[in-house]
Amino acid sequence: MRNLKLTLAYDGSAFHGWQIQPGKPTIQGTLAEVIEGLTGERLLPQGSGRTDAGVHALAQVATFHTACTIPVANIRTVLNDRLPAAIRVLAVDEMHEEFHARHSARGKCYHYRIWRGDVVPPFLARYVTHHPYPLNETAMQQAAALVVGEHDFTSFAAVDPERAQRMAEAAGDEKSVGIPDRKHATNIRTISESRLERHGSELLYVVRGNGFLHHMVRNLVGTFLLVGKGTIAPSDLPKILEARSRCAAGPTAPAEGLYLVEVEY
Amino acid sequence: MRNLKLTLAYDGSAFHGWQIQPGKPTIQGTLAEVIEGLTGERLLPQGSGRTDAGVHALAQVATFHTACTIPVANIRTVLNDRLPAAIRVLAVDEMHEEFHARHSARGKCYHYRIWRGDVVPPFLARYVTHHPYPLNETAMQQAAALVVGEHDFTSFAAVDPERAQRMAEAAGDEKSVGIPDRKHATNIRTISESRLERHGSELLYVVRGNGFLHHMVRNLVGTFLLVGKGTIAPSDLPKILEARSRCAAGPTAPAEGLYLVEVEY
Repeated sequence: MRNLKLTLAYDGSAFHGWQIQPGKPTIQGTLAEVIEGLTGERLLPQGSGRTDAGVHALAQVATFHTACTIPVANIRTVLNDRLPAAIRVLAVDEMHEEFHARHSARGKCYHYRIWRGDVVPPFLARYVTHHPYPLNETAMQQAAALVVGEHDFTSFAAVDPERAQRMAEAAGDEKSVGIPDRKHATNIRTISESRLERHGSELLYVVRGNGFLHHMVRNLVGTFLLVGKGTIAPSDLPKILEARSRCAAGPTAPAEGLYLVEVEY
Repeated sequence: MRNLKLTLAYDGSAFHGWQIQPGKPTIQGTLAEVIEGLTGERLLPQGSGRTDAGVHALAQVATFHTACTIPVANIRTVLNDRLPAAIRVLAVDEMHEEFHARHSARGKCYHYRIWRGDVVPPFLARYVTHHPYPLNETAMQQAAALVVGEHDFTSFAAVDPERAQRMAEAAGDEKSVGIPDRKHATNIRTISESRLERHGSELLYVVRGNGFLHHMVRNLVGTFLLVGKGTIAPSDLPKILEARSRCAAGPTAPAEGLYLVEVEY
């Protein structure tokens, strides 16, 4: 069996997120169908993590084992011929047997795009969040810098039943996951980059870390927006982290500005 | 009555072109509906020209007369609130009574975007034409330069029943058009810019002129692609123009790479 790694870009606006769901178009489900058409195998490609409905990817990674012997370059061509234009396979690589899109990941980078102009160009409507109202971007930048480092991000984590189950599994029976998945047994993550950049009318949030909890980037952005509006101060960030309570942080920012940009291995 | 000028950007992929058609979503029809909701007037905004299904606009211009007294800035806000995100009003200006989006136009600029990379990013799928095969871009550039100047562009004009009617009207009974529309009685146009530019994986065709016939930009691009493939030579361009026959030129390039970028007044 070969272990294949797909690097994928997708426009999340037409899909109900990454994870397969009966009767709904999802990235994982669409990929599984097209792979079955190519190899005759019913399998589920494993992503580096789920992305929510409306979230985009510039370089999501997925892996699957296959008996198919077609050369990787041809697999890419055939998959792109059969997939909708909203999902593109950027690369197909054959990996060693142990490599796994999620378990082998050492970190990720996300972008969040906020359009600050009065009018969103129609070509960006699905790809940015619109916030034309006044924001103190300097204060937002200060707040963003305060989450760099190792912290317990419980205040920024959505309740996630599937993850709760994985945590229980990791704590109890380790045989239930291929590789011990200790990172997922806590809400402690290390953020190495967290900054805001202005590019013309666009305010771009760049965040990189060794792992992200469910909705964590969108909850960080929602909190930075409260800072920008003056509802809370940058100096409130340490208190919000210490609270370890979802209620302490700001609301979840919309999905359509969010991009999974890179998975590090 | 005020004479209002709208400057519009739109994503043409969801519309059956500019011109109103019963039972089909069009830019003109959508605008007319939203304007009626705002002013109570049933009117048809007049565009600088029609764009085909799938063709985009960065700055289309439309005019209409209205008794409505709402300030122009508020009109923009309300129209953008009510229009789909695929159509945006960039500006609303009050013009002198004689100004007309089509009759007053002195020239236009179009862009045509060709993606040369192996894989079209999903975010550009509706916005570029994909041509990953070899092209002699230097020869294409030479061909593009040869259409600069005043020429009869009959070889690049689609048969257009409505325009044939306008030509007959202009030649016969001038009262049937508000302002004598002599430019439209011939296929002679003056092109001031016609060039190809490389921007990373994108080959961009830029063309500017005092007027364009139906499908003219797409037929020029289709012909330059034949030059790029080596089917015809750049030196064939003068002969194609002289032929004054649609059969002499190349096929019509797809709509989705085409943008109306500017209307000059």
